[in-house]
Amino acid sequence: MDGSKPGVHLNLNVWGLGRSPTIAIDARSRELAAAGHRIYRFGLGQSPFPVPAPVVAALREHAPVKDYLPVEGLPALREAVARYYCLRGVERTAQDILVGPGSKELMFLLQLTFYGDLVIPTPSWVSYAPQAQIVGRPIRWVPTTAEDGWPLTPAELDRVCRDEPEKPRLVVLNYPANPTGQTYDVGRLEELAAVARRYRALLLSDEIYGELHHQGLHESVARFYPEGTIVSSGLSKWCGAGGWRLGTFAFPPTLAWLREAMAAVASETFTSTSAPIQYAAVTAFEVGAEIQQYLRSARRVLRAFGALVHRELVRAGAEVAEPCGGFYVFPDFGPLRQRLRERGIETSTELCERLLLETGVALLPGLAFGRPPEELTARLAYVDFDGALALVAARALEPESELDEGFVAQQAPRLVEGLSRLTEWCAAR
Amino acid sequence: MDGSKPGVHLNLNVWGLGRSPTIAIDARSRELAAAGHRIYRFGLGQSPFPVPAPVVAALREHAPVKDYLPVEGLPALREAVARYYCLRGVERTAQDILVGPGSKELMFLLQLTFYGDLVIPTPSWVSYAPQAQIVGRPIRWVPTTAEDGWPLTPAELDRVCRDEPEKPRLVVLNYPANPTGQTYDVGRLEELAAVARRYRALLLSDEIYGELHHQGLHESVARFYPEGTIVSSGLSKWCGAGGWRLGTFAFPPTLAWLREAMAAVASETFTSTSAPIQYAAVTAFEVGAEIQQYLRSARRVLRAFGALVHRELVRAGAEVAEPCGGFYVFPDFGPLRQRLRERGIETSTELCERLLLETGVALLPGLAFGRPPEELTARLAYVDFDGALALVAARALEPESELDEGFVAQQAPRLVEGLSRLTEWCAAR
Repeated sequence: MDGSKPGVHLNLNVWGLGRSPTIAIDARSRELAAAGHRIYRFGLGQSPFPVPAPVVAALREHAPVKDYLPVEGLPALREAVARYYCLRGVERTAQDILVGPGSKELMFLLQLTFYGDLVIPTPSWVSYAPQAQIVGRPIRWVPTTAEDGWPLTPAELDRVCRDEPEKPRLVVLNYPANPTGQTYDVGRLEELAAVARRYRALLLSDEIYGELHHQGLHESVARFYPEGTIVSSGLSKWCGAGGWRLGTFAFPPTLAWLREAMAAVASETFTSTSAPIQYAAVTAFEVGAEIQQYLRSARRVLRAFGALVHRELVRAGAEVAEPCGGFYVFPDFGPLRQRLRERGIETSTELCERLLLETGVALLPGLAFGRPPEELTARLAYVDFDGALALVAARALEPESELDEGFVAQQAPRLVEGLSRLTEWCAAR
Repeated sequence: MDGSKPGVHLNLNVWGLGRSPTIAIDARSRELAAAGHRIYRFGLGQSPFPVPAPVVAALREHAPVKDYLPVEGLPALREAVARYYCLRGVERTAQDILVGPGSKELMFLLQLTFYGDLVIPTPSWVSYAPQAQIVGRPIRWVPTTAEDGWPLTPAELDRVCRDEPEKPRLVVLNYPANPTGQTYDVGRLEELAAVARRYRALLLSDEIYGELHHQGLHESVARFYPEGTIVSSGLSKWCGAGGWRLGTFAFPPTLAWLREAMAAVASETFTSTSAPIQYAAVTAFEVGAEIQQYLRSARRVLRAFGALVHRELVRAGAEVAEPCGGFYVFPDFGPLRQRLRERGIETSTELCERLLLETGVALLPGLAFGRPPEELTARLAYVDFDGALALVAARALEPESELDEGFVAQQAPRLVEGLSRLTEWCAAR
């Protein structure tokens, strides 16, 4: 035998897997910015707001904490999360909660542990499908239509399930939705819950943007299908702490077998979630007065910015629904197809690449969310502003007033400028 | 269709997977302690020492940092880790480094990403094999013998590889070793490296206890097989920060394809490692004067306690090698088999259960490390003492002196008491 370096031997499910597109666009934007380009960072979906002060203080206080925590999570945090849900109409106990280093990691362990098809609407957040690919699970995309903002309908969900009604399935519902900014009313949630129950589907309700419902009126679907719903959340979006990496799953007691199996896998993978971060998260999930104020201000700011973004995109000629939660919109530039074709743009990927190079506006192509390549959709995250300053400014204004265009212009100049470059670019021939 | 709750559908690789035994023994010890039992916690392998003060201060300073960091890690941390290795004879650049939420998580992603057999010596750390089981990889155990403390020998490694010399393999080397406390000298490392090179095996060198070599003389095998070796480390053991969850992999440039593939999987799973923790880790990997002092004191303390543990176990009648790194020993109570059989003890599991119930001494059975069930081996972690006080006391003594029995008795009363209960229990009939 002649020895040498190891050969390339990769799991075929991983071969060719690219970086998550949200992470890739962020890296690409950084590169262009470093090269001196002016970049409007509407690509990465990171909260623009700081971590609330009491939560930062709690992290400082617990910096010396060094012990491995239980794999399911710090008991005080599991209790705080359970209380959080009880106060929001979803009865859960501390035992029902699983804490992990990000809800994305928990979703991956769920897909690895549960043996069933993945059923997701298109468009959907960029990581559900690649996770299924990595663990070798089949993916069923449920079609939706642009009308009313790409909602998952009970009829379409039923159509996907009824051919093989007994087949085990993991259905993912995500609202307020990434990438559309849309949500579901209670009537629709009840109907979707009824379909999931009919087919005994496991329902993963990704409610990480729930606290960022622009009117503060988020309701969990777990109220209507408690025995089959896992509710996913975390600190990344409503608490501004994406980089901290802490996510939570709330199981019903009926799914204890799944929680137990996931905890066993967790004990062989991430072990437990960072201890100082978990102590700080207790303060977050208690949602004290200061954090409530923070959330009210964040919602007002996002409502005002979302309205502006919607208006400007309509003005640019895109088809788009006004957002009602989170910080995304999902415009369809299909009405401009002819004009864009003349400039050599036929796909959402080409649209986003050209837009980034020619205007500095970073969007994510619809393709990354499971849309057909030639559909001219893209996700815009309206997060390119100084969230700390915006919160202070919003708080200084009459609490109940809508924030006006003057506020937006002052607090989000890059957002306004980026949108106007986008509009000009769309109008060009 | 009559709907109802979802049925039990588990990935067969996960079905029946228990908690990691180290985590399970910790949970069981906590329960018994809560019920009023006096427990000697020699089960969980957690560093008894606090996180060094400059590292805690760095975490406090970076508590407000909230952005998602690049998936491979904070650039400043990747640089600090690369410099750390360069100073220790392993040439690596920042680009070669991958940071994750614990080296266990990185090892799992490695096993998921690389397509090859897992080759591990028996005994081995408890998680390598279950990780292979979860991702469905075959496991080849390499036999070792108690003589000289269960070392992996070049001859045995060659024997495992030579039948199918081209088969892709991941060979794991771990030293100072968990569970044996033994290490390899440079001559032996060169021989092992030569075998790995001969068969183009991927070598994962788990050196997380490297800084806890009792004489401070750790050498990396990557010096002798640079093109095929990944060196694994992290903050958990030498920096006392197990609960913080930060691990590192250092790849050679020849394995960039594997690092890239792992980063792609990471971008769909853990996303990035907690940002405040990564900033603090920069300070740790710079290993400034205060941390060097901390490590010197920690080694002296562990050397003294390891010598005591070895002496007492020999006195109890066990066969055991004196530890030379880390904080474990792996005694074989086989010489007492006849006496133990009379008390109904035939396996390592029965040995540990009875010992815990009858004396409060928590050990981990050899079975958990891949040893035959009826072999009366167990791992003892000599970490049940106040590491902060021990460091202060050690620093107050003449720097070069060996810490004596008086020191041990004063600083580790639970260790002394637990060992004496263990010895009495062994002597009982």
